[in-house]
Amino acid sequence: MLKVAIVGASGYTGVELLRILHAHPEVAVTVVTSEQNAGRPISDVFPTLRNRCDITLENVEPVSIAERVDVVFTALPHKAAMEVVPTFLKMGKDVVDLSADYRLRDAEVYGRWYEKHMNPELLAKAVYGIPELRRAKICEASLIANPGCYPTSVILGLAPLLKGKMIDPKSIIVDSASGVTGAGRGAKVDNLYCEVNEGFKAYGVGGVHRHIPEIEQELSLLAGNDITISFTPHLVPMDRGILSTIYSMPLGKVKASELVTLYQEFYDGEPFVRVLPEGRVPSTANVRGSNFCDIGVVVDERTGRIIVISAIDNLVKGASGQAVQNMNLMCGLPETLGLDILPVFP
Amino acid sequence: MLKVAIVGASGYTGVELLRILHAHPEVAVTVVTSEQNAGRPISDVFPTLRNRCDITLENVEPVSIAERVDVVFTALPHKAAMEVVPTFLKMGKDVVDLSADYRLRDAEVYGRWYEKHMNPELLAKAVYGIPELRRAKICEASLIANPGCYPTSVILGLAPLLKGKMIDPKSIIVDSASGVTGAGRGAKVDNLYCEVNEGFKAYGVGGVHRHIPEIEQELSLLAGNDITISFTPHLVPMDRGILSTIYSMPLGKVKASELVTLYQEFYDGEPFVRVLPEGRVPSTANVRGSNFCDIGVVVDERTGRIIVISAIDNLVKGASGQAVQNMNLMCGLPETLGLDILPVFP
Amino acid sequence: MLKVAIVGASGYTGVELLRILHAHPEVAVTVVTSEQNAGRPISDVFPTLRNRCDITLENVEPVSIAERVDVVFTALPHKAAMEVVPTFLKMGKDVVDLSADYRLRDAEVYGRWYEKHMNPELLAKAVYGIPELRRAKICEASLIANPGCYPTSVILGLAPLLKGKMIDPKSIIVDSASGVTGAGRGAKVDNLYCEVNEGFKAYGVGGVHRHIPEIEQELSLLAGNDITISFTPHLVPMDRGILSTIYSMPLGKVKASELVTLYQEFYDGEPFVRVLPEGRVPSTANVRGSNFCDIGVVVDERTGRIIVISAIDNLVKGASGQAVQNMNLMCGLPETLGLDILPVFP
Amino acid sequence: MLKVAIVGASGYTGVELLRILHAHPEVAVTVVTSEQNAGRPISDVFPTLRNRCDITLENVEPVSIAERVDVVFTALPHKAAMEVVPTFLKMGKDVVDLSADYRLRDAEVYGRWYEKHMNPELLAKAVYGIPELRRAKICEASLIANPGCYPTSVILGLAPLLKGKMIDPKSIIVDSASGVTGAGRGAKVDNLYCEVNEGFKAYGVGGVHRHIPEIEQELSLLAGNDITISFTPHLVPMDRGILSTIYSMPLGKVKASELVTLYQEFYDGEPFVRVLPEGRVPSTANVRGSNFCDIGVVVDERTGRIIVISAIDNLVKGASGQAVQNMNLMCGLPETLGLDILPVFP
Repeated sequence: MLKVAIVGASGYTGVELLRILHAHPEVAVTVVTSEQNAGRPISDVFPTLRNRCDITLENVEPVSIAERVDVVFTALPHKAAMEVVPTFLKMGKDVVDLSADYRLRDAEVYGRWYEKHMNPELLAKAVYGIPELRRAKICEASLIANPGCYPTSVILGLAPLLKGKMIDPKSIIVDSASGVTGAGRGAKVDNLYCEVNEGFKAYGVGGVHRHIPEIEQELSLLAGNDITISFTPHLVPMDRGILSTIYSMPLGKVKASELVTLYQEFYDGEPFVRVLPEGRVPSTANVRGSNFCDIGVVVDERTGRIIVISAIDNLVKGASGQAVQNMNLMCGLPETLGLDILPVFP
Repeated sequence: MLKVAIVGASGYTGVELLRILHAHPEVAVTVVTSEQNAGRPISDVFPTLRNRCDITLENVEPVSIAERVDVVFTALPHKAAMEVVPTFLKMGKDVVDLSADYRLRDAEVYGRWYEKHMNPELLAKAVYGIPELRRAKICEASLIANPGCYPTSVILGLAPLLKGKMIDPKSIIVDSASGVTGAGRGAKVDNLYCEVNEGFKAYGVGGVHRHIPEIEQELSLLAGNDITISFTPHLVPMDRGILSTIYSMPLGKVKASELVTLYQEFYDGEPFVRVLPEGRVPSTANVRGSNFCDIGVVVDERTGRIIVISAIDNLVKGASGQAVQNMNLMCGLPETLGLDILPVFP
Repeated sequence: MLKVAIVGASGYTGVELLRILHAHPEVAVTVVTSEQNAGRPISDVFPTLRNRCDITLENVEPVSIAERVDVVFTALPHKAAMEVVPTFLKMGKDVVDLSADYRLRDAEVYGRWYEKHMNPELLAKAVYGIPELRRAKICEASLIANPGCYPTSVILGLAPLLKGKMIDPKSIIVDSASGVTGAGRGAKVDNLYCEVNEGFKAYGVGGVHRHIPEIEQELSLLAGNDITISFTPHLVPMDRGILSTIYSMPLGKVKASELVTLYQEFYDGEPFVRVLPEGRVPSTANVRGSNFCDIGVVVDERTGRIIVISAIDNLVKGASGQAVQNMNLMCGLPETLGLDILPVFP
Repeated sequence: MLKVAIVGASGYTGVELLRILHAHPEVAVTVVTSEQNAGRPISDVFPTLRNRCDITLENVEPVSIAERVDVVFTALPHKAAMEVVPTFLKMGKDVVDLSADYRLRDAEVYGRWYEKHMNPELLAKAVYGIPELRRAKICEASLIANPGCYPTSVILGLAPLLKGKMIDPKSIIVDSASGVTGAGRGAKVDNLYCEVNEGFKAYGVGGVHRHIPEIEQELSLLAGNDITISFTPHLVPMDRGILSTIYSMPLGKVKASELVTLYQEFYDGEPFVRVLPEGRVPSTANVRGSNFCDIGVVVDERTGRIIVISAIDNLVKGASGQAVQNMNLMCGLPETLGLDILPVFP
């Protein structure tokens, strides 16, 4: 039985970790932290947990936490994560960090998009945790940089095309849309029910969203050369889900049926990636609450473009579910343990 | 490993049974039926199931089905259920019927609210499956009448008060609200997204909703005398959840704290009923996707009235979850097997 | 052309006043205030207004404002209103106050439910502005206490029964539900999209909601004796709308058809109250964006209870629309001017 | 006072026409038709209209209708429109057709995307009614082909760039999203509340949506050469609104500020197009219920791409509002009459 701490448990990825880990047969969550709510039972903050997980929220004291657990999930904002992760590592703990702090290999790039990195020496040590592409390294890692939600949907959506060198790398346009949990649980007017409900909008337009360097880093590794994309995120009035509609131009003529086969072979045996049959496209509704990434591939015969559409639950495969998948690998457990849950529909 | 059939699998309670049973370690769903979709893989109708449950939908042929399974869930409209249930029973199968067909003990009452009953002799044999109140009988039953969604919320909400003879039985007013899955999956203009969204309304006002006789039957049994209630259902623009706000007048003076204690003792040890601490009231959001029934008890000092509020997920504790709970009991399995899943939040 | 100020224009009732008054042929909004956003064009805060109303938000300086306008709408929180209203009145301006500060006739009651009143001498001068019941007084008033949203729905719903002395005054139970605009535009976690969406809950249960004294005051005036009610508000995941389901016991035997006639006669000629035909009940979806109050009356033959259901748009008939209706009367304009807009559906 | 018929009044564009025309000072709607609901008052089908528009729905008898009105709006499905429009024209009536039947200039193209055209001789006579681009012709027309919802958002979004020959015509990718009213009011499982709610998906992927030929026809006219686009529509869980995110590659280097100026000059004086200041992008929430088209222009400095985002209410500027705008022009009335209504927010 692994003892686990969730550092930063009062946000949406925190409570989602608790939901998933509650069903995990080899994990006991023994520490949960929240600066704002320290001293209260977590079931007071999230009444969904009542009678099942009523442990008390603590302040973040890394040394004390590390003494009591085997694995630490840090579900903190960027910067807050890199303030505590080094201590956990020094004390020999395995860490899955859900923030952006260890996702970029290059501290200079991190500095440009975020701020000066506090422990750049750890970047080489961290493994970007997308199991479908980097399973072996994850198994040996002690620090997992758990991917962002948009990046997960885009990287899984493009990996077969880029690995196969099938598309013009300059032609990639990613148009994504996310449910509102992606905006976090902070008290902001912009995220009030009545501000978001019954509206659809883009944000971070023009190449300024912080997930861009992360996406480009991974796509470039897949392609073997530098890739720059256009990326536009949108906000959908729903709780969960990310759908990425990804446009690219093939280098030669392609058929949808061949591409579907390419994708099916690429992801053959993957427990959480479902490549849809030709003619089908995914919906976030079909992955809600699950660790699945559904992918559909279409060719626009009129323009020649390939359109890949991928759907995930941003809180599961886009955050807490993938984090548990990484933990399983890192700790030598079966990869799907605790994660073989079906989507909730409706 | 129990082999299970879901007869009527293309509705919302059908797919919810599949979601729950997928996580049940002692069950294999081997037969699913749908008149409209026979011949198609069920994952074609519900893409949430893809790669996890791809069996083919069949027509309803009771004898053939009975030969292949141990337990049958009938998730059919009323009348359609009583056309097939007798065959399953005759062939020695355990049946959990999610329709209204076996919920009323009195065929005459059934005839008044629905239509002429086709096999009234089975009514005495059927056990109304609310485990918190009738566990022993359920364990011995072969036909479970799985309770309606509204009735579950109301019966659990009032049981302690009625058993304790604490309220004037004429004073009961039940004001309930349900998410839209309660209206089923039929193609009707009234249930289109744009007809339902951004609106709140009552329906079946004035004592005409078909769940009334079922509620009154069970409340009368609890109280030991005939009970007539006022019941008004409402439709909420959300997928899942029922909240019942239940008003009654106590026979003597009561305190909220005493009532909360009464409820906590009444439901002590129950795995799926959570009595909230004094001052807290439930939300459907806190039980979404789970088999919980959350109950809060308040006293209005100004009018003396007791207000009990209960919340369930209509598809889980109000239908498919309770059905599995009943199956567990009926089949000698641990009551919570496959059901210890936390609510999905948000 | 009336010159109008909206004091407190950055909340939902403020922007709704601007929407309505934009279509009002006899009004020019010349002053808008917001402490938080002073100096910015209001169309910056509410982009809906761009190119139609781009005036700059000011700080609240009552004397300066009063010098420039004829009528003042105060759309402020309680307390903030009574800090500025006396100045407007002293300078001879007509005031429609949308806060709770002048709704209660008795300063002691105000003190019990809110806080110590700062200018109790104005309470006798203020007219509770529900035009259907108090049109003549409104025409002569210079200070209108614009009714609360829940109270509007309940008072209009019960007036015919109470005036006609047809019900037991002790039997009244009001079960109401509101869209989320009712919770205001403050940045609170509780009102975030993901906290509210896909959930239904009661709040202020047990006779503690501040609209109770206001409702009881007006019901008591209608009935001619003191009335105490049970009132339970609920929160619905939608932007706009209040539905009140009101239970009461008739003093003698009544028929639904007679009650519908009673209501139709009572509200005969009223431009904004629509009494539905027998057998119909209202939905908030049918009044959204309009100044209508729809009322349906049902009798539960089994229990004898009368069930009245009333629906309004909380921001229109429940706030800004009624405020304009009051302004029209107070200023000698046709009552429906600027308000003859149909509901938006869907 | 113009007498107006709405042929096909029981759909969402029909009721929206009634809402808008109710506030139009020069129009009286005297005929409404619905095959399914003939004989019922329209306020029975749409209770929003009660007490304001209670006229009886008729069957579609073109001659009889033409005898009684001056202008006809045909809000019918494609094909049904071309069955009746010729009669109205023959009898000298002005027609605004909201279907697709007269939008394409080329009957062969119509035949390819829809079916064989029944009166191709009328195509040359019909004017594609986008007033910002074709005002003079609309004023002289007797048959207006009212543009589709997606096309309106795309054509207005791209017109300045194409007229100015500023972009590579092969580079255009349009990623759009629509509220559910766009799917119509037919009783289909796919459009049930629980099927649509809490999900986001693409549909008609790969260049197969029927609005494509219409968009390309108009873009080609603007550009002066043939244009082929990639177009992917998505479905958003909300009632109203279309947002189009439009990607293109400029022929030379451009700055956002220059493009904003270009757009502002292009649409200078237009009452219903609002070009947002640099740095702002539109939301459908800011045009809901109004005839506005909001446009934001951004340049992605990293890839060089131009991103234009346009937002409309699909039922207003995308259908019924634009239809009234066209009627005003065609009938010699002020273009904005009845249409100067602000968006409803929230």
